[in-house]
Amino acid sequence: MTTRRPTVVQVARRAGVSIASVSRVLNGKAARPDTTDRVRAAAAELGYLPDAAARSLKLGSGRQVTLAVDDIGNPVYSELMQGVVDGLSGSGARLSIASTGQEPSELSALVRNLSRGLADGLVISPLRRSSELLRSLVDSPIPVVVVGNLADAVPLDSVRIDSAGAVRLAYRHLQSMGAARIAFVGGPPDTAPGSARLTAFRQLAQHDDGRVLVTGSFTVRSGERAWNKLAALSKAERPDAVLAANDLLALGILRGALSAGVAVPEQLAVAGIDDITFARVFSPALTSVSLRSRERGRLAAELLQHRMSEPSAPPQMRTVTPRLVVRESTCRS
Amino acid sequence: MTTRRPTVVQVARRAGVSIASVSRVLNGKAARPDTTDRVRAAAAELGYLPDAAARSLKLGSGRQVTLAVDDIGNPVYSELMQGVVDGLSGSGARLSIASTGQEPSELSALVRNLSRGLADGLVISPLRRSSELLRSLVDSPIPVVVVGNLADAVPLDSVRIDSAGAVRLAYRHLQSMGAARIAFVGGPPDTAPGSARLTAFRQLAQHDDGRVLVTGSFTVRSGERAWNKLAALSKAERPDAVLAANDLLALGILRGALSAGVAVPEQLAVAGIDDITFARVFSPALTSVSLRSRERGRLAAELLQHRMSEPSAPPQMRTVTPRLVVRESTCRS
Repeated sequence: MTTRRPTVVQVARRAGVSIASVSRVLNGKAARPDTTDRVRAAAAELGYLPDAAARSLKLGSGRQVTLAVDDIGNPVYSELMQGVVDGLSGSGARLSIASTGQEPSELSALVRNLSRGLADGLVISPLRRSSELLRSLVDSPIPVVVVGNLADAVPLDSVRIDSAGAVRLAYRHLQSMGAARIAFVGGPPDTAPGSARLTAFRQLAQHDDGRVLVTGSFTVRSGERAWNKLAALSKAERPDAVLAANDLLALGILRGALSAGVAVPEQLAVAGIDDITFARVFSPALTSVSLRSRERGRLAAELLQHRMSEPSAPPQMRTVTPRLVVRESTCRS
Repeated sequence: MTTRRPTVVQVARRAGVSIASVSRVLNGKAARPDTTDRVRAAAAELGYLPDAAARSLKLGSGRQVTLAVDDIGNPVYSELMQGVVDGLSGSGARLSIASTGQEPSELSALVRNLSRGLADGLVISPLRRSSELLRSLVDSPIPVVVVGNLADAVPLDSVRIDSAGAVRLAYRHLQSMGAARIAFVGGPPDTAPGSARLTAFRQLAQHDDGRVLVTGSFTVRSGERAWNKLAALSKAERPDAVLAANDLLALGILRGALSAGVAVPEQLAVAGIDDITFARVFSPALTSVSLRSRERGRLAAELLQHRMSEPSAPPQMRTVTPRLVVRESTCRS
């Protein structure tokens, strides 16, 4: 058998164009559309492999990692992305971004598509996790790392957070600053972090006069709407502190309170969760519990590279420890 | 001549492994590292083209677009990225992110690497533009779109902004609100926007008692340092308004002024440029000139797709018109 790697000459002959044209098309240079189509068809029929692709197969480099995020407009996800870039740097892998909607079925479709040769690895941080989505992740032929808390039985690498610990840190801090009526402004309860943080608050506040509001999204707008509800309460019912389930909600509440002339933190203390970059910038600066998004991205990239080189190793888990960052919104120095 | 596309059977024989192993490796499934290496080497030697790659060549789909940004932590760039995602949606193209340093030589190296088959198109928004970088962009074998203002002689597609118009809008607005001593806090003068906005301010303010500060970076920290310099001025010298060359600088100045107990906008009015998402969220909300980052990203993706289908069309240019968004930092309602 004398099968040899097909050459540019053969591609040119099959396509009925010049060798220069084949070279132009296969190197991505300008060419007429019909020439491009004919060259690509001929190359595919002959199984011609351009040098770059051959080199990449040979060296095993040029791996493609996809990061799937629900909302690239949320600063938590751009910090996560920076962390993945940090973690991949020097590995030769490239990062591509899939911005998806938040529907688990949409994510399941994405996972199936990526597995058809479009990516060599996936980092995914889904807010909502259906059993269908988890099944498609477990069944994926390419390595997957989940940024989020999975049940221990799910055989996937994951980077986890201690949501209950984060809520507890913020709650105890607000108490220590003298807050007597702490309200909780939660995210959507059908999301993993929304549910975990709400449950954690309810456990802490069961003997307190805890007031709970639940919002439709983890956004500044939802925080502003939550403030409007708090502002409508009678003076006796009004909280003296708010614990928000993330920083965007907390910033919306701060904005609403400041616009209404409420003194922060004297009349209302506010704490968030995530410690996004803008928490420090806001005035008053926002007290928050850091969940170290950038570090989580870096850890996810590390787990993924480990999985690529050791496909049959047992699933691994990394957990980041939450850290309270006290600023002006709860503590005026 | 009977050259046929090599088969999985031939790859397995050459690698000395089972067909199942070849299939696993080439589909990205778990396999022993030495098996993976042997299969990849055999596939490269034979010129074996996996189905997914063949399909992608055949259909011309699955194109890979790279967005190169100086700093993915800057919200302007995440908005630009969202716009590119918008513009590519439905095209089948995937977006990958190259986060580079800000050195033109580093960018030139990136452009050369991408052109070696790692991407099918490039959107780039370089803060600093050496002639070497521009040459590597013009010479690139893959289509390139620059988000930024190029000299008209440079034969590249570009999405431009009207920096001088943006500065003029903010300056006239501050004057109309009664500001008599307007200071300018500029970005690094060796960057394209830093230089253009500084020049525009100097032309407007030539007969005024204009005070100009230049910073080392377009960041909140630089804005805070600029505030410290303004605060050190004698009362007679102190400005009653600041025009900042971008929103991050403006937010740093606002933070500094508010922490020092300065009433905004009564004692100091502040305006920025970019209209990032957080401009609206800050309290007082920041007056800014929108440069429509998301729209610029969308336009860049459109130009790139046009260039891919019409490689020899003359270079095109799109310009977004700046728009003033008046908020509390200059105008208390």
